[in-house]
Amino acid sequence: MPELSFDVVGIGNAIVDVLTQADDALVEAQGLPKGGMTLIDGSQAESLYDEMGPAREISGGSAANTLAGVASLGGRAAFIGKVRNDQLGGIFRHDIRAAGVHFETPPATSGPPSGRSLIFVTPDAQRTMATFLGAATELGPDDVDAAVVAAAKVTYLEGYLFDRPAAKAAFVKAAEAARAAGRKVSLTLSDPFCVERHRAAFRDLVEHHVDLLFANEQEICALYEVPDFDAALQAVRNHCDVAALTRSAQGSVVLAGDEVHVVDAAPLVRLVDTTGAGDLYAAGFLFGYTRGDSLYDCGRIGAIAAAEIISHFGARPEVDLARHLEDCMAAPGD
Amino acid sequence: MPELSFDVVGIGNAIVDVLTQADDALVEAQGLPKGGMTLIDGSQAESLYDEMGPAREISGGSAANTLAGVASLGGRAAFIGKVRNDQLGGIFRHDIRAAGVHFETPPATSGPPSGRSLIFVTPDAQRTMATFLGAATELGPDDVDAAVVAAAKVTYLEGYLFDRPAAKAAFVKAAEAARAAGRKVSLTLSDPFCVERHRAAFRDLVEHHVDLLFANEQEICALYEVPDFDAALQAVRNHCDVAALTRSAQGSVVLAGDEVHVVDAAPLVRLVDTTGAGDLYAAGFLFGYTRGDSLYDCGRIGAIAAAEIISHFGARPEVDLARHLEDCMAAPGD
Repeated sequence: MPELSFDVVGIGNAIVDVLTQADDALVEAQGLPKGGMTLIDGSQAESLYDEMGPAREISGGSAANTLAGVASLGGRAAFIGKVRNDQLGGIFRHDIRAAGVHFETPPATSGPPSGRSLIFVTPDAQRTMATFLGAATELGPDDVDAAVVAAAKVTYLEGYLFDRPAAKAAFVKAAEAARAAGRKVSLTLSDPFCVERHRAAFRDLVEHHVDLLFANEQEICALYEVPDFDAALQAVRNHCDVAALTRSAQGSVVLAGDEVHVVDAAPLVRLVDTTGAGDLYAAGFLFGYTRGDSLYDCGRIGAIAAAEIISHFGARPEVDLARHLEDCMAAPGD
Repeated sequence: MPELSFDVVGIGNAIVDVLTQADDALVEAQGLPKGGMTLIDGSQAESLYDEMGPAREISGGSAANTLAGVASLGGRAAFIGKVRNDQLGGIFRHDIRAAGVHFETPPATSGPPSGRSLIFVTPDAQRTMATFLGAATELGPDDVDAAVVAAAKVTYLEGYLFDRPAAKAAFVKAAEAARAAGRKVSLTLSDPFCVERHRAAFRDLVEHHVDLLFANEQEICALYEVPDFDAALQAVRNHCDVAALTRSAQGSVVLAGDEVHVVDAAPLVRLVDTTGAGDLYAAGFLFGYTRGDSLYDCGRIGAIAAAEIISHFGARPEVDLARHLEDCMAAPGD
């Protein structure tokens, strides 16, 4: 067997996205916090699906999107996550492997069906998610292959995993295996509501166990319970080796001790669906980081990957990101 | 129970499309005739899916697309077609009902899984399809509700149904029920290879049983075994009450006895994926036809609906076609 070697291994919820266009009134009528991710159970998923317009299914899952992005950029990527042995699970497995991502987590053969996220894209291109985790909740420490984690420069962990005890145990096992192998540990805070649910644990992680943190403005403010971005920036600065903080159209700020970079958002041809913007920013950043780029360039690659993903429906790249990156970096005036 | 009343009832293969972007080399390597539809079995579907890049799933099926289009335009639409009681079947059922189409065909509870069409969209926006009919082959005469057929001004039949004996029997039952109720019967030839497989039967249908025929240039030439469009036009003219013949970017020609209309293609913002162009032309035409528009206006509405569908991935409308039609009809210079 050839020796395993990865740039990034990601661990997260294996999810198929079910995307529809919707107006604000529908999102409000369903009681979903706009722009956020709400967890729902199987029967809620069924009744919400009944209310939903015609949809399209595209493989998703936050960390899975990131790893698909890393692979599309030319990085060596692996993913650990749980589906069931059903049709949606087969779609997830096909798509992530077809994207070039190593994916060997065995599917569950019993229990709930594969997870799905019902995503309502409003005319302002914002996405509001209602997620039925399904089989993703069956992910446990046994699914974490320590050899794969040890073989990856960075282990990338999804904050969403904290929503279920077994998945959280998988998270902890992976972080420890990465640490033991002298590898880097990276965390994304995932969602402001997720931060609210697990604030103390996330603060402990960020301050003691994480080398590279990803968060958007709402998430980092929620973590430190501060009202504005600058206060959050000052708070995280003292705690984390590297933090990449995203701010939608206002770009991102990358912090590492005394080093601070302000990175503009990449030019955008058209804004269709913001699903996956943060996931693909992380993909670009991690790709640059694992090949030794400067932190400023990592942020720029993140911005370019994010701009591609929000120009169409779905959170998986529609173009070869490696070629796209080359084109963008070569663009006149850039 | 309220009295049933429909503008159009369609009968066809219930299919979920699995769309991917591919280059010409891949399509050629798989031995698929470019731009056509090839029937494959379950094991071929599996191995072809393995070769396929990341994909998205969008409900499809030729007649089903047409009926979704009729509903989006504001027409009263019904569909008869067979899925299994599996996840893909649930997606199909959800999407067509969410589009506003009456759909009550009970799913199969045993036998092959729901049908799917693996669709390769090449950079020229052409689509090449490999279809595993699956549960769609279980459609039979018992699934045809004669009350629904009698309640529809037009019964729209997919030529593809001729590929399986039971589906063909359903087709014949529906045509006879429509005829018995004094309703119109419409047929789409579906695909030039489908015409080759069933030429004699299709000619008999067109000449004796069909009021309104849809065909593209390749299909009508295949039906009459003539080398060019004009020859096909002269041949069909003597046989069919109304024929609407589509020619991609060259628009369409509508024939009814001595009446002949040449209809331009609608202006196109961008060409992404031609999947569903013919299906949505038929939707627009049938919508106009059942509300009593002139044949020329029927062709124009068909062209507008087709232009919308080819501006994005997938063969179901992404906008409210009724509003889109209003906008297009009101456009200056039109």
